[in-house]
Amino acid sequence: MAQQHLDPTDPTAQAVPVSGDALAGYLRAQATEFLRSLRLHRETGGGGGTPARASSSVGENGSDRSVDAARALRRSARRISGSLHTYRPLLDPDWSEGMRPELAWLSGTLAREHAYSARLERLLGALNRLSGSGSGFPAQAAGPGASAAPKGNLTIGAAKAGALLDRQLTLARTRAHSAALQALGSSRFHAVADSVAVLASEVPLTPAAATADLRPPAAAAEGRLLDAVAALPLLTAGHPYNAEALVHGLSADTAPQPQDAPWHQVRLLLRLHRYAREVLYGEECPVDVRLLGAGQALNQHRDAAEAASAAASAARTPRIAPATAYALGVLHADQRHEVEAARFAFQQSWQKEAVPTL
Amino acid sequence: MAQQHLDPTDPTAQAVPVSGDALAGYLRAQATEFLRSLRLHRETGGGGGTPARASSSVGENGSDRSVDAARALRRSARRISGSLHTYRPLLDPDWSEGMRPELAWLSGTLAREHAYSARLERLLGALNRLSGSGSGFPAQAAGPGASAAPKGNLTIGAAKAGALLDRQLTLARTRAHSAALQALGSSRFHAVADSVAVLASEVPLTPAAATADLRPPAAAAEGRLLDAVAALPLLTAGHPYNAEALVHGLSADTAPQPQDAPWHQVRLLLRLHRYAREVLYGEECPVDVRLLGAGQALNQHRDAAEAASAAASAARTPRIAPATAYALGVLHADQRHEVEAARFAFQQSWQKEAVPTL
Repeated sequence: MAQQHLDPTDPTAQAVPVSGDALAGYLRAQATEFLRSLRLHRETGGGGGTPARASSSVGENGSDRSVDAARALRRSARRISGSLHTYRPLLDPDWSEGMRPELAWLSGTLAREHAYSARLERLLGALNRLSGSGSGFPAQAAGPGASAAPKGNLTIGAAKAGALLDRQLTLARTRAHSAALQALGSSRFHAVADSVAVLASEVPLTPAAATADLRPPAAAAEGRLLDAVAALPLLTAGHPYNAEALVHGLSADTAPQPQDAPWHQVRLLLRLHRYAREVLYGEECPVDVRLLGAGQALNQHRDAAEAASAAASAARTPRIAPATAYALGVLHADQRHEVEAARFAFQQSWQKEAVPTL
Repeated sequence: MAQQHLDPTDPTAQAVPVSGDALAGYLRAQATEFLRSLRLHRETGGGGGTPARASSSVGENGSDRSVDAARALRRSARRISGSLHTYRPLLDPDWSEGMRPELAWLSGTLAREHAYSARLERLLGALNRLSGSGSGFPAQAAGPGASAAPKGNLTIGAAKAGALLDRQLTLARTRAHSAALQALGSSRFHAVADSVAVLASEVPLTPAAATADLRPPAAAAEGRLLDAVAALPLLTAGHPYNAEALVHGLSADTAPQPQDAPWHQVRLLLRLHRYAREVLYGEECPVDVRLLGAGQALNQHRDAAEAASAAASAARTPRIAPATAYALGVLHADQRHEVEAARFAFQQSWQKEAVPTL
């Protein structure tokens, strides 16, 4: 269980109980935000059109605002779902058990399009950096007609790798976009939206919840986080250039790296802990810089791990040129090193003293 | 010029002058060591036979002792050459100017065989590590008959990459071995050996050298080192995971990375400084742990940079399989990260306080 508290100002460590009213208020606010984002998403063309790039260079148009609306929708769906999980003893069990998988399905479906878009942007950015060119990446220079120089010009390999990733991830993003549209038009989605609409006015608390103390379940969420962090190889992670993240870089196993799983798990638990804190603090929830830094490092970890996996996967495309495969190998290793860098950054954030933020 | 001294106990910073006699004694000792190693090299079959692997698993046979003898020969050749450079105002200029390029030619020729052997060992070790296998690397599993699985088994890619590197670097080593044998039988070599034999009994000091002070030329060597270190990007190097070393990992330029050159230069200047100290201190030269650590980091830097370059070069072999090229790309990036790790290690060694070692 929890051996240290993340923040001495955390109400879970304080004497004043926080009651179920705080939970009801939080859930109502998140449900309202969910409905607002949904309305905005529909108004900004989220119900159709071409998928938008994650890039902000597109400008402030309907497509951009639709992306923002989808992000806000996911954001509130995650918070509702997380709070239902952490504070489940205080909620009607049938209702909350039925609601959580539906919210997870929705936010997962909505997240995919953005994830492919961001992954492509990350990989093209990395190829650009690895090519040592300060200017834009010339992916368009590598059409089907482009052929490698006799000695194998690696820049052409990088351009071809970029074009291949662009093709594959754009296709995946388009499919994710269609799937999201289909989901938003489905009766399953309408049932979720209806449940959230009910939640915005009437939170199904148990009879005992009004006088129950929110601090024990919040402390339990924190405890699960601290236990999971304690099981991470932080000693290794804190030693720069430990070369751990690439250890299975060439193994035959094409499944996601098993060494990443505990880090992904901590990322989810850290998020649940953050949401649990938001419920306790309400509107005045102070920003914990340490949690913020640790969370950002774990997001980087996840993004880099998935990008590395996409590069490895692209390298298994049949009939690619050796120069393309070489560039994808360099790219894979580069992203696995970003994974290692993210673990180091997490370790550095985490080992900082918890400083009172109030 | 020098802004700080590396070691407060360094005689260059002290009041008592060290005269040319110390230089004569040092050069005589190194020349004697050179002749002893040469005799040992001839006795242990250094004049023929098959090239030896750098691996120590060969056992204590004639071939191993020949490798040791060649190493000792290079070691004394470098020290003589370095001292002639640092203390050239105290030596007969015609003689020392004629001698240095000949010693550089000799130690360069002798070093090549060992370098290819060590590079192959490093690269196969890295492939083994990247394949996540604790046991030996199955390079023999990837004969010409081995073919990639339909989806492209990356372990086969790694094995094929290992077999390709083995073939290319073994060929290079065999050629270097022949070149070294040819060099040791040449009249050019006999002239060098004759000059060293003269040096073992009679060091050609200038008339003024007996009363000259060795400290100013030694301090100048240190100054050149400190100036070169001051020009290194140590701030970046001290920031882990700065991703600098791979910045040109996919650029079209196949020449050695220009960013490595200043580090290689510091490696040479550090060596000259060490030899200059040996002359000043004589037999009792204390080990400076800081210099030792910095020097080892720069050796790692050089080895990793050359291994990365060998992997990139192997990837330009015509008609290789994409899986082989992919594995070589991962390997290249891995070694460039070792380059970055070595720079970090150098920065860490260097920033330590110079501690008196006497």
